[in-house]
Amino acid sequence: MDTFTENMKSIPTNRIEALSDGVIAIIITVMIFDLKIQSLTKEEMVWEELMMLTPKFVSYALSFLSLSIMWVNHHQLFHQIRNTDGRLLWYNIHLLFWMSMVPFGTNFIGSNPFLWQASLVYGIIFFMNAQSFTLLRKYVVEKELLYEGISRKAHLRIRNKNRLAQGLYLLAGISAVFSVYISFMIFVIIPAMYFTPEKIIHQTAE
Amino acid sequence: MDTFTENMKSIPTNRIEALSDGVIAIIITVMIFDLKIQSLTKEEMVWEELMMLTPKFVSYALSFLSLSIMWVNHHQLFHQIRNTDGRLLWYNIHLLFWMSMVPFGTNFIGSNPFLWQASLVYGIIFFMNAQSFTLLRKYVVEKELLYEGISRKAHLRIRNKNRLAQGLYLLAGISAVFSVYISFMIFVIIPAMYFTPEKIIHQTAE
Amino acid sequence: MDTFTENMKSIPTNRIEALSDGVIAIIITVMIFDLKIQSLTKEEMVWEELMMLTPKFVSYALSFLSLSIMWVNHHQLFHQIRNTDGRLLWYNIHLLFWMSMVPFGTNFIGSNPFLWQASLVYGIIFFMNAQSFTLLRKYVVEKELLYEGISRKAHLRIRNKNRLAQGLYLLAGISAVFSVYISFMIFVIIPAMYFTPEKIIHQTAE
Amino acid sequence: MDTFTENMKSIPTNRIEALSDGVIAIIITVMIFDLKIQSLTKEEMVWEELMMLTPKFVSYALSFLSLSIMWVNHHQLFHQIRNTDGRLLWYNIHLLFWMSMVPFGTNFIGSNPFLWQASLVYGIIFFMNAQSFTLLRKYVVEKELLYEGISRKAHLRIRNKNRLAQGLYLLAGISAVFSVYISFMIFVIIPAMYFTPEKIIHQTAE
Repeated sequence: MDTFTENMKSIPTNRIEALSDGVIAIIITVMIFDLKIQSLTKEEMVWEELMMLTPKFVSYALSFLSLSIMWVNHHQLFHQIRNTDGRLLWYNIHLLFWMSMVPFGTNFIGSNPFLWQASLVYGIIFFMNAQSFTLLRKYVVEKELLYEGISRKAHLRIRNKNRLAQGLYLLAGISAVFSVYISFMIFVIIPAMYFTPEKIIHQTAE
Repeated sequence: MDTFTENMKSIPTNRIEALSDGVIAIIITVMIFDLKIQSLTKEEMVWEELMMLTPKFVSYALSFLSLSIMWVNHHQLFHQIRNTDGRLLWYNIHLLFWMSMVPFGTNFIGSNPFLWQASLVYGIIFFMNAQSFTLLRKYVVEKELLYEGISRKAHLRIRNKNRLAQGLYLLAGISAVFSVYISFMIFVIIPAMYFTPEKIIHQTAE
Repeated sequence: MDTFTENMKSIPTNRIEALSDGVIAIIITVMIFDLKIQSLTKEEMVWEELMMLTPKFVSYALSFLSLSIMWVNHHQLFHQIRNTDGRLLWYNIHLLFWMSMVPFGTNFIGSNPFLWQASLVYGIIFFMNAQSFTLLRKYVVEKELLYEGISRKAHLRIRNKNRLAQGLYLLAGISAVFSVYISFMIFVIIPAMYFTPEKIIHQTAE
Repeated sequence: MDTFTENMKSIPTNRIEALSDGVIAIIITVMIFDLKIQSLTKEEMVWEELMMLTPKFVSYALSFLSLSIMWVNHHQLFHQIRNTDGRLLWYNIHLLFWMSMVPFGTNFIGSNPFLWQASLVYGIIFFMNAQSFTLLRKYVVEKELLYEGISRKAHLRIRNKNRLAQGLYLLAGISAVFSVYISFMIFVIIPAMYFTPEKIIHQTAE
């Protein structure tokens, strides 16, 4: 390993969490900035404008939800981390990078809801988000940076859920080529998946 | 409950407060970004531009005040919370979502001050803000996540004040259809209500 | 006092500082967002664009410096505060409001550097910043919310420096009507004033 | 020294770090805001739009990486600082200023990738970033504000790496006049340099 990464042993978990929290808070708030209605010249235009905003609002709400789920997952992971090291920090920065791409994808699909390329891009961005989270998690588990007492079964459950989400985002991106409606459905199902009772998730993942 | 929400018992109050603080700070600062005067080609245009900015400035100041009141309420609530759990976290995220919609409403009404649809939307957004705060508060009280010693009378007083605000926002939205001036008045009264002496609030709410 | 403000005794100093830090950090960073050069169609336009950016860059740098000085002053004040109460919180929120107006003023004067109305507005905004800081400070000193041991002489020195800054901003706004160059000079002198050796400040203020 | 700076002895390291973290988090997230595709009128335009976005995406990713490296360096430095004083605070604010200029440079080069002036500006901005970091570091070492136990050899190694980066950014800016491709190469090499194994850096710097 290079000296640069080696010397990063010292960064405490809470500072990494604080920076991540800051970035996530900014991302979810800055995204909304695209929702705007400027001065309207004719009153009849209002309903038209509000209708054009609906896909933007929906994509914003969906991304807000997905990023919130990621924030919760991120916190739960860091809560279990006992030691950090340089490589963990870079896996985290890699995750923050893909999270910062979410406003772009959200705006793209919200402005052009029926464009299959927009659904493809949105799917790719969220796939990369899930992927970078998986890389972070894998590293943490492998290097045994966690506290004792996290059962192997819990690990598997979370790992399977992440894999499922990843696979679904990939599927959503691919199916966008054929039908944007299928990818819409998948984009909605994935966050919803996180809230369904345990047994069902357990069965779907195995 | 699903495992995802179940496992969220561990998130400490201060981290939820920190993320909420971050989001609120961003919202109230990003809102101002719409107030802008670009390069003016003719000097006579200045007064015209400044006049067009006045409703934007007023709506910004009003929203800034309303969000500040919500920040204070939010803090007071969390100061009393002893334990958090997963559902509380999601009620909080739900609140943050509606708070993030405030810049949109503020910009809409500030750009089109005499459009009744703008007042309606503004009223709805703030109604949803009050509503999501009420849901959060109700959950916290029901599940007895608070410290001992908060008197039932104090609870009722705050609950009544929230209900009054909610009802007034709804009324403001509805009256916008008839007269934007009535809704303007209500939008100003609600924050002002929080600063009037106790006795008057007490009487109005019962 | 109303119950709302009364119940705010409990907000710890560090949470108020954290929110203020967040807002200030956002303000100084969002301001820069106006500095932008889009895709240029002809290469010759570059120098023209860069030249048009110069007043924007200068006003941004000046505001960045002024806001940094305010952040330092804010911290020094809060470092001395032992107890907070509701009114202090609202004086602080009032200060944050005027700080959030700085990007608007900066953009206005940066886009229209020779427009006297822009200098007037910039002067007013910073005057209100200095004023709201003075109100906050006065309240803190009057209500004896400070730690023991801050000498009366130190108080006077800081109070005089603030008054001088306030007066100068007012003067800058007024002189803008006659000559924007005079107000430019004053706008630069005020931050510079904070860095001159003690004796000179002492003499000018008395 | 002036009283203002003298009285700043009291600002704790963690508050300076918190403000710096906040500013950096905002900078790296606000930068992405320029990456946007609005409503497209014709579907054929998509690929064209996505292609135009590529240099923007690349410059964003590169700046994101460079700023992350600076954040890590910043943290490592502050982790070693035992005492702060007024001048250190201003060296830090000076650094934050140049970091806040990065979105401008990134947007400039991303929108006009083949314009040599854009590469020149980007190089100058990052040179100033490296320079202000060096000034901060020099001051900290000279005034012995560090904890004991940081070996002289480690100091030299970091100092040499910073000097190399500075020199390279200067070179990149200059070479932009002749060929933007050379400066691109250097812009990519510098962050990459931070990740190469120790021995190679050691040799290049001496």
